[in-house]
Amino acid sequence: MTPFGKFPFRSLKDLASVACKEAFTDAGVGAGDINAAVVGNALGGLITGQECIRGQVVLRPLGIQGVPVTNVENASASGGSALKLAYIMVASGAYDLVLALGMEKLYHRDRQRTLEALAAGMDLEHIESFLGMQINGDTKNNNGAMQINQRSIFMDYYAMGARMHMQLFGTTQEQYAMISEKNHFNASLNPLAQYKTPYKVDEVLESPLVTYPLTRLMCSPISDGAAAAVLCSADFARKLGKQNAVTLAASIEVSGMDRPSDAPDIGQRVAKKAYEAAELGPEDIDLAEVHDATAFGEVYAYESFGFCEKGAGGRFAQEGHSRLGGKLPVNPSGGLLGRGHPLAASGVAQIYEAVMQLQGRAGKRQVQGAKVALTHGAGGAIGVEPAVMNVQILKAG
Amino acid sequence: MTPFGKFPFRSLKDLASVACKEAFTDAGVGAGDINAAVVGNALGGLITGQECIRGQVVLRPLGIQGVPVTNVENASASGGSALKLAYIMVASGAYDLVLALGMEKLYHRDRQRTLEALAAGMDLEHIESFLGMQINGDTKNNNGAMQINQRSIFMDYYAMGARMHMQLFGTTQEQYAMISEKNHFNASLNPLAQYKTPYKVDEVLESPLVTYPLTRLMCSPISDGAAAAVLCSADFARKLGKQNAVTLAASIEVSGMDRPSDAPDIGQRVAKKAYEAAELGPEDIDLAEVHDATAFGEVYAYESFGFCEKGAGGRFAQEGHSRLGGKLPVNPSGGLLGRGHPLAASGVAQIYEAVMQLQGRAGKRQVQGAKVALTHGAGGAIGVEPAVMNVQILKAG
Repeated sequence: MTPFGKFPFRSLKDLASVACKEAFTDAGVGAGDINAAVVGNALGGLITGQECIRGQVVLRPLGIQGVPVTNVENASASGGSALKLAYIMVASGAYDLVLALGMEKLYHRDRQRTLEALAAGMDLEHIESFLGMQINGDTKNNNGAMQINQRSIFMDYYAMGARMHMQLFGTTQEQYAMISEKNHFNASLNPLAQYKTPYKVDEVLESPLVTYPLTRLMCSPISDGAAAAVLCSADFARKLGKQNAVTLAASIEVSGMDRPSDAPDIGQRVAKKAYEAAELGPEDIDLAEVHDATAFGEVYAYESFGFCEKGAGGRFAQEGHSRLGGKLPVNPSGGLLGRGHPLAASGVAQIYEAVMQLQGRAGKRQVQGAKVALTHGAGGAIGVEPAVMNVQILKAG
Repeated sequence: MTPFGKFPFRSLKDLASVACKEAFTDAGVGAGDINAAVVGNALGGLITGQECIRGQVVLRPLGIQGVPVTNVENASASGGSALKLAYIMVASGAYDLVLALGMEKLYHRDRQRTLEALAAGMDLEHIESFLGMQINGDTKNNNGAMQINQRSIFMDYYAMGARMHMQLFGTTQEQYAMISEKNHFNASLNPLAQYKTPYKVDEVLESPLVTYPLTRLMCSPISDGAAAAVLCSADFARKLGKQNAVTLAASIEVSGMDRPSDAPDIGQRVAKKAYEAAELGPEDIDLAEVHDATAFGEVYAYESFGFCEKGAGGRFAQEGHSRLGGKLPVNPSGGLLGRGHPLAASGVAQIYEAVMQLQGRAGKRQVQGAKVALTHGAGGAIGVEPAVMNVQILKAG
């Protein structure tokens, strides 16, 4: 993966090339060995104007041509979607060696453009797109996108969930801040992270309010970056002589639903399928990289994936269980909060972190003896749920 | 599939719903039986503003929720890409019943917006994007998109190929016009076609010049529409009690290359793989639905797929071989020229036509005794080649 950050002078081609070359070197393969590529990108069309063939365009300078290229998007979960498709392509038997690439340039000198593009992860014609936001029916792009007062509409969604959790379970704003402190600390150990400054709980609470209870340091930033993974069958890995390949034991994706409030939510649905596919349970997970687009997202993940009881996520963080050295370190990379969140790159960057951890190559943020990792992405919104959620479970060896 | 045409007052949701419901009825399944969906759309992001989760958004009113939705794009070949992914998903064993949907709203009251969006099917930073066109570095969208004088840049590409074919092989403008006449005649037999008026060769030649030798009636129009297909394994089709399911014998996709001029071109490469996968040859094809974005595209297809010798495509049309009643009817539906060309819908609409023909349900345009059909999509541009090409071979029973 590339470093994550704001890179106004680096193109998607540049970022994608760096990530792919590093993945090929690590896998011991050449660009010419790739049989198919899946390229995840959420907002290149709206932000750079390049639509339709984003994968072919960025793979061209690498000499990856001729092979099928699937351009896929699923909002913030696009990276996990690319990975899942690559997994299915290998499983189908049609391809030996498949590249999964996630890339994003979210930063634009016109901040409003980025914010409007982010809103395209919702159903723009549907009622929830209009709630709580100021509509401007005649924006520059004349596409119904919203004026959103210098914050992404998704922060309002997360804040709504965070407030509900406080009311139902007594979760505190301080507990959310502790998650942010943890992830920013972890990021300070990650040379590829966008933010390398650790922040204390007080500093997190004192940073500007976005939407109560979320302050700026509890929200993921606007980021650019790319990450890549090379997938093949276990047989093919043996043929390549790979000793340290990591096994993808499950790659599951579900979509959001309009559902009765007593029906299983999207996190519960995806967790059940992922654990079943991997034939593992929460007790087997040594570390997790979860979708902390905000600090509340991490609480939601703890509970969805059975790391703690429903409602106990705030205490789980407060008691230090999810810190490095705790019983189940979460977001050792720094997560979306600290490593940064270039939408489609995040899901593949989680895989990068999981692989580093399972191969014992994570340096100062190494989770000792890690054998099983879970990664988790979420994207967009359909009603009260994310539009997409995907989970991967990876095993050493 | 929906009728194709210009539907300023019909949304993507509306078009997609009509196509999906019809596909479900024909397959004898319910929306709730679908295990996964692949949704192809090329330009919704740039034209309607809805990006990221286009599939989830249009499937929501149908009640298709919860299952994984893959949003895929590959310019004009997006429909074939959706179909290919659905095919791979079934082949992987992970899903029983997969929906492939292609949909497009290309028409916009601001024609310039549609033309600029179409240009996003090229590598916008690369040299060929700048050749032969007037650049406007400060367009409304400020994304490097081109001012293209009221025609799609792709028409210049096709015209370049058409002129080269005339110089090398003596192909005539009249021969291109004969293809257009044939396809408009076929479209007049297709109740779902955008253009139902047959045109004579003289009328085609006298229509306004786009880029020599292509006149307007030799170019596909701007269209809206949707088409859907339901895919499953042969075993599952038997379990459903389907007597008339059509077999997808090959679904192959390749990408364009920067290549030496004596290396096999993209059409030759994709044809070889498709015939190998289906274990069939050109002599087995009873009808074809090919990518006649312009009349020259059809000549290119005749030759790529071995319907005639290299260079003989113009004569092949002139001699009537590709007409209904000829030895190998091509584009019995009317093709992109007559049926219309809503980008991502076209590839799935070809499948619709192939299935109708192989099931003997094509009415006045029925190819008698058709047992094997080939469909063909192309999209975007990488250097001198389309960025993507896909081919399906379908067999009755």
